[in-house]
Amino acid sequence: MFESAEIGHRIDKVTYKQQVPALREDLLDAQLDLVQCGKFPVLILIAGVDCAGKGETVNILNEWLDPRYIETHALRDLTDEELERPPMFRFWRAFPATGKIGIFIGSWYSQPLVLNVYDEIDNAEFDQRLDRIVHFENMLCREGSLILKFWLHLSKSAQKKRLKKLESDPKTSWRVTDTDWRNYKHYDRFRRASERMLRTTSTAEAPWIIVEGADPRYRYLTIGKLIHESLRRRLDAAPGPVAAEAFPPMITAVNGLRILQTLDLSQALKKGDYRDQLAKWQGRLNLLSRHPDFKKISVVAVFEGHDGAGKGGSIRRVTQALDARSYRVTPVAAPTDEELAQPYLWRFWRHLPRRGRFAIFDRSWYGRVLVERVEGFCSQADWMRAYGEINDFEEQMVCHRTVVVKFWLSISKDEQLRRFEKRQKIGFKRYKITDEDWRNREKWDDYELAVCDMIDRTSTEIAPWTLVEANDKCFARVKVLETLCDRIEEALEAVENIE
Amino acid sequence: MFESAEIGHRIDKVTYKQQVPALREDLLDAQLDLVQCGKFPVLILIAGVDCAGKGETVNILNEWLDPRYIETHALRDLTDEELERPPMFRFWRAFPATGKIGIFIGSWYSQPLVLNVYDEIDNAEFDQRLDRIVHFENMLCREGSLILKFWLHLSKSAQKKRLKKLESDPKTSWRVTDTDWRNYKHYDRFRRASERMLRTTSTAEAPWIIVEGADPRYRYLTIGKLIHESLRRRLDAAPGPVAAEAFPPMITAVNGLRILQTLDLSQALKKGDYRDQLAKWQGRLNLLSRHPDFKKISVVAVFEGHDGAGKGGSIRRVTQALDARSYRVTPVAAPTDEELAQPYLWRFWRHLPRRGRFAIFDRSWYGRVLVERVEGFCSQADWMRAYGEINDFEEQMVCHRTVVVKFWLSISKDEQLRRFEKRQKIGFKRYKITDEDWRNREKWDDYELAVCDMIDRTSTEIAPWTLVEANDKCFARVKVLETLCDRIEEALEAVENIE
Repeated sequence: MFESAEIGHRIDKVTYKQQVPALREDLLDAQLDLVQCGKFPVLILIAGVDCAGKGETVNILNEWLDPRYIETHALRDLTDEELERPPMFRFWRAFPATGKIGIFIGSWYSQPLVLNVYDEIDNAEFDQRLDRIVHFENMLCREGSLILKFWLHLSKSAQKKRLKKLESDPKTSWRVTDTDWRNYKHYDRFRRASERMLRTTSTAEAPWIIVEGADPRYRYLTIGKLIHESLRRRLDAAPGPVAAEAFPPMITAVNGLRILQTLDLSQALKKGDYRDQLAKWQGRLNLLSRHPDFKKISVVAVFEGHDGAGKGGSIRRVTQALDARSYRVTPVAAPTDEELAQPYLWRFWRHLPRRGRFAIFDRSWYGRVLVERVEGFCSQADWMRAYGEINDFEEQMVCHRTVVVKFWLSISKDEQLRRFEKRQKIGFKRYKITDEDWRNREKWDDYELAVCDMIDRTSTEIAPWTLVEANDKCFARVKVLETLCDRIEEALEAVENIE
Repeated sequence: MFESAEIGHRIDKVTYKQQVPALREDLLDAQLDLVQCGKFPVLILIAGVDCAGKGETVNILNEWLDPRYIETHALRDLTDEELERPPMFRFWRAFPATGKIGIFIGSWYSQPLVLNVYDEIDNAEFDQRLDRIVHFENMLCREGSLILKFWLHLSKSAQKKRLKKLESDPKTSWRVTDTDWRNYKHYDRFRRASERMLRTTSTAEAPWIIVEGADPRYRYLTIGKLIHESLRRRLDAAPGPVAAEAFPPMITAVNGLRILQTLDLSQALKKGDYRDQLAKWQGRLNLLSRHPDFKKISVVAVFEGHDGAGKGGSIRRVTQALDARSYRVTPVAAPTDEELAQPYLWRFWRHLPRRGRFAIFDRSWYGRVLVERVEGFCSQADWMRAYGEINDFEEQMVCHRTVVVKFWLSISKDEQLRRFEKRQKIGFKRYKITDEDWRNREKWDDYELAVCDMIDRTSTEIAPWTLVEANDKCFARVKVLETLCDRIEEALEAVENIE
């Protein structure tokens, strides 16, 4: 979930200076239209990791927008007045009226998160509170509010660096408190809890937008542009219930840097190394699959990737290591009549493995947010709600001791071309290349955007994506096998004492 | 929530025989259309109190409908196959395809309910599971499914009677198991837990429909008619996302008997008795309001009722007993500009009382499901979602130790006419009667339907409605005072050991 916010997004000074004036003008225009139409209120939540620049961001927004129509709320300790009413009272008091923008640092998310991190409420109660928040935000959305939720993220090392830097400068050292360092010590727990929180409360109407916090210019530009785009969409929307097209946009990195581009696709294995590694990991996988505790778990492996990235080859290297009775490979193509007569996820549920078995999916339920999104096979509302539904689905598997391993096999556009051309030349490989492959290739950018959104929204602590650099097939296959072994080993360790 | 299902609904044999043939024809017609259009699947859940006739109802449905397009699932213990997959697997396997009807006795609700009743999961985990169910059903609804959830209810005495009757007859005694008697012993816990469940999972798209189970003819006719009506609505709906108008209907009693009609409005108090009682309860209320623990709680009293039912007079009898500094009466009329610029509930949140205070609402947030519904001031989607939002709102108050007391002051149509005419004659009361009152009177039946729906959907264990027979003003006032005192006393007892 935080992958895309740890790749070191930056905006250089020159670009920033070039872009800011136009953005400020756009923002003011949009805000003025909002004030004049007075149709809906805007709630902007600025949350995230300590010292990721929440305060500075709010200051910038107040500078860029017309502060007369902005109310900023930094809600900390409850006042007497508030203590005597239900917890949500303070937020109801602080709501912006239609036409206004309310900016919240510290929101209805703050308390449940902290309580969960410090073990004062367990996951069940945490979920209960988060679900109440979802109800609450649903209500606000249906009442017409535009809710923008920004999560400023810092990796552990980036947070440490920033705390040290702020502390070392006498002018900023006051900003680092003991609480900040205490929270830093709990970074991993914070990360896990906030991931759960973001996953549970990211709805199609009010998704979380995760922004890398390390570089201020990147942060300001991203948030500024997203606020502008969201405002415009909503202002331009038809009257009546808000359609999916007017929901806040999924993030697109303002500097054009996407996680897939950060992969080092040049990684490769020499022939000899490959043979050794393959033997090693296939052997390990075979042993694991015959481990006595393996009958207490099951494995679902998902293979997605660019056309021609070598999904089939990788899958074969996995199955070679397994007893044919213990796995089933399900290639996912167009749905059958029977499948069309059921809810979308039905055709995957039916293939869930029994205990002690592998289910390998050659393409998967992610088709909904990839091909169906890009080709318009389903409505925007449908694929937007799919992220949450997929996370639910995978959570159910994981809770039932299924190891969910998801691979994205990534190749460069050039490498794809090379492979396509080669396939056309080799007779027995010709069936593998169709007109559709060439058509998809034309939509390379659209697909890439969809893939990055997919990773941001569905790579979770419990079911993370593994991005596989696949320009070199050997490297890819070994990485797949190794990852699979690691994840199964982890699960076997966790399961040791059960039953 | 169960009030309307405990008033002894019956259908006599003659009426039943008259109505069934036409209903069966309608049902078959609708089912045939469903099969032919094949656009959506229908899931019918038959749940409820033990021995309320779930099995018999399913048999009747199979008799009335064409069983070739029905799949009945009585899901009990998990099979081996199912145990090895996540809990929802069995239901995914059992889904009806589009054009088909799936009837479920025992559903995704069964396990969480039983676990909560027998204390194997606490309320937080119960809520967590229920919220997952809501997500799940939301997904099904958005995928196009029509979900009809029937809850067959029996009062405690009715259940006992039925268990005894079944047991005494050798032909049916096998139907009563030890589990049934064990569950009966936990009737009150079952009732509380199922109320919580029904409240949490009644959504606009898939509301629970509560049916009194005591009389089989009433039960069959109600369920049959509701299935027919729901099918027709959905079949006739425009293509595309399902609009609120095509959601399953709220219940309307097939025998025309509504809870308001069961009130004995002839109840009255003699002048002398009234004076004594008034003094007694006002004194009690005053004492309670000065109880040392009263500063740990607060009171929200809601007065709704027919026009002319005497809300103002009742409120005055309450405030007479209180220190003017401790209460505020909020008359709810048309919203101000400022209120219109906020979400609907905002104008009530702002008047929530501090600890140790009373907030008295002369009309309230229930306007949404009464006048706004009847007069069409808001869309059907808006008032349908309001039930859930109101329950959320009141739950937040109750969790914060606010006593929520809700009164519906009920008078007969004749009594209203008498009062209206009297008011027109008495000079200083003339301002109390407007053209609007006369217009509302013309919509008496629409209002009454809305009131009954309101009571069914928002009278909860934690914030029940008190129906006040108000043809006699004295009787009404004393009942209001007495109820208020009882509820506050309860709260003070509960709060004794806190802080």
